[in-house]
Amino acid sequence: MFNKICIIGVGLIGGSIALAARKKKLCSDIVGFGRREDKKNLDLAQAKGIIDHHYFDIKSAVQGADCVVIATPVGVIEDIFIQLKDYWSDSAVYSDVGSTKVNVVEAAEKAFGFVPENFVPTHPIAGAEQSGAEAAIDSLFDKKRLIITPTLETSQQSLLKIQQFWEMLGASISIMDVEHHDHVLAATSHLPHILAFSLVDLLGKKDEKNEIFKFAAGGFKDFTRIASSDPSMWRDICLANKNEITQLIQQLQNELEKISKMLENDESQMLFDTFDNARKARQRFLNLFEQ
Amino acid sequence: MFNKICIIGVGLIGGSIALAARKKKLCSDIVGFGRREDKKNLDLAQAKGIIDHHYFDIKSAVQGADCVVIATPVGVIEDIFIQLKDYWSDSAVYSDVGSTKVNVVEAAEKAFGFVPENFVPTHPIAGAEQSGAEAAIDSLFDKKRLIITPTLETSQQSLLKIQQFWEMLGASISIMDVEHHDHVLAATSHLPHILAFSLVDLLGKKDEKNEIFKFAAGGFKDFTRIASSDPSMWRDICLANKNEITQLIQQLQNELEKISKMLENDESQMLFDTFDNARKARQRFLNLFEQ
Repeated sequence: MFNKICIIGVGLIGGSIALAARKKKLCSDIVGFGRREDKKNLDLAQAKGIIDHHYFDIKSAVQGADCVVIATPVGVIEDIFIQLKDYWSDSAVYSDVGSTKVNVVEAAEKAFGFVPENFVPTHPIAGAEQSGAEAAIDSLFDKKRLIITPTLETSQQSLLKIQQFWEMLGASISIMDVEHHDHVLAATSHLPHILAFSLVDLLGKKDEKNEIFKFAAGGFKDFTRIASSDPSMWRDICLANKNEITQLIQQLQNELEKISKMLENDESQMLFDTFDNARKARQRFLNLFEQ
Repeated sequence: MFNKICIIGVGLIGGSIALAARKKKLCSDIVGFGRREDKKNLDLAQAKGIIDHHYFDIKSAVQGADCVVIATPVGVIEDIFIQLKDYWSDSAVYSDVGSTKVNVVEAAEKAFGFVPENFVPTHPIAGAEQSGAEAAIDSLFDKKRLIITPTLETSQQSLLKIQQFWEMLGASISIMDVEHHDHVLAATSHLPHILAFSLVDLLGKKDEKNEIFKFAAGGFKDFTRIASSDPSMWRDICLANKNEITQLIQQLQNELEKISKMLENDESQMLFDTFDNARKARQRFLNLFEQ
């Protein structure tokens, strides 16, 4: 499918794309690009056969590549675009895998003055708490969802190529516009992470914190698992989508305020209805979407 | 250890106590008490050998029992005490397994005018989303924590007996006072449940709810799993401990407000520190208490 894929940022996602692409024989050569301080990670990626070579200068990394995947934290994508600009090739297809999309498209607009027609923004709904090339596996995207958010400028040809690429990697593709993606993901992913981080931060500062965690049962552990996610990655994601997220925080505050009032006023039936609605909603959606 | 154990409310917890006590040969006879509308559940419990007999009148149920365990929802415990009052035996030991303890002790005070010295309140930190005798298993309390909250009136003899009983069932015992229990459990269990219910209730009402749940990954599913818990049980628990819970909701609102401000003002470092603190706190406590 491609001659040479260049992965910019060979972490969990970038490394897993490389492994899956190699397994499915979608290219003959895969190289990685990173900063000098990522040398250890890039050496490991190369030793494990995730990439064939790695480079610290972007010119050599993208030389001859017909597919370039940006898999860095979303906070540095604008800088990557600026570095790529001088070596941008019209015959290659470019993509990214950032968890937020409005800011990625804005970063492209800032760097280029427009969004290149051969840049296709995507977001694979897959991941793990672990990070780095060490955590990469070739099945990370198997039967996982992948959202493509083409812009008005994106060419049909580039869109199709990236869609085919991800279908070959095993993902189930959805297409939506950039703003809608950030709106939906704020609810499904960003807000829950903020809730888990804030709950653990709050309880971890309490005098009785040892007891609180000692008597935590399985439900609490599940509930707070995502508070073990990479803090710098989540800082970037939350800042990149802050408008959507702060609105949702406000809505949740209102919901919590309502529940607090129900408790204070012993509104037993209203409280039951709220909990029961939630339980039914969760079950309905599990039935719909559980694979 | 006992001649006859009477389980008041043969659900997941009551049924599992019966199965574990039988397996460990802690008594010769186990009976269940329930309401007429629970007949199907009691028949099932008897057919499965969880209990030897069941009764709809409390007098026959507790006749000759030297151990009585109240395993009903916390909302009806006062009514159970009132029913038990006329048949209360000084030679038996009584216990409950409610998830809140202040209200249970208050219910005893209301029913008796004092807390009987042979009543020992407990709270096993074990459970599941499933409910009813059908879900009962004999290993539910294996290596799980159990909190005993003796009152000033509780006799040493009764306390020791209940402690030994639960040790034989495999639980690891902690003793704390009644108010402290409700303070700690509000943080470790009640608040997370309210958060999960409110998040799912909020998102389940949105126009884009289908998409929100469609693109939910594993983290979100874990995070909201406890929103599938029994709504009437959780209504009772939350109302019973509303003073502690509403204070915590307020504290979490403040924490969310702070994070919202950090996002609005692009306080990148503060946001990172908050997330990083949470991640480290969670890891520290996992290391301390993970079995």
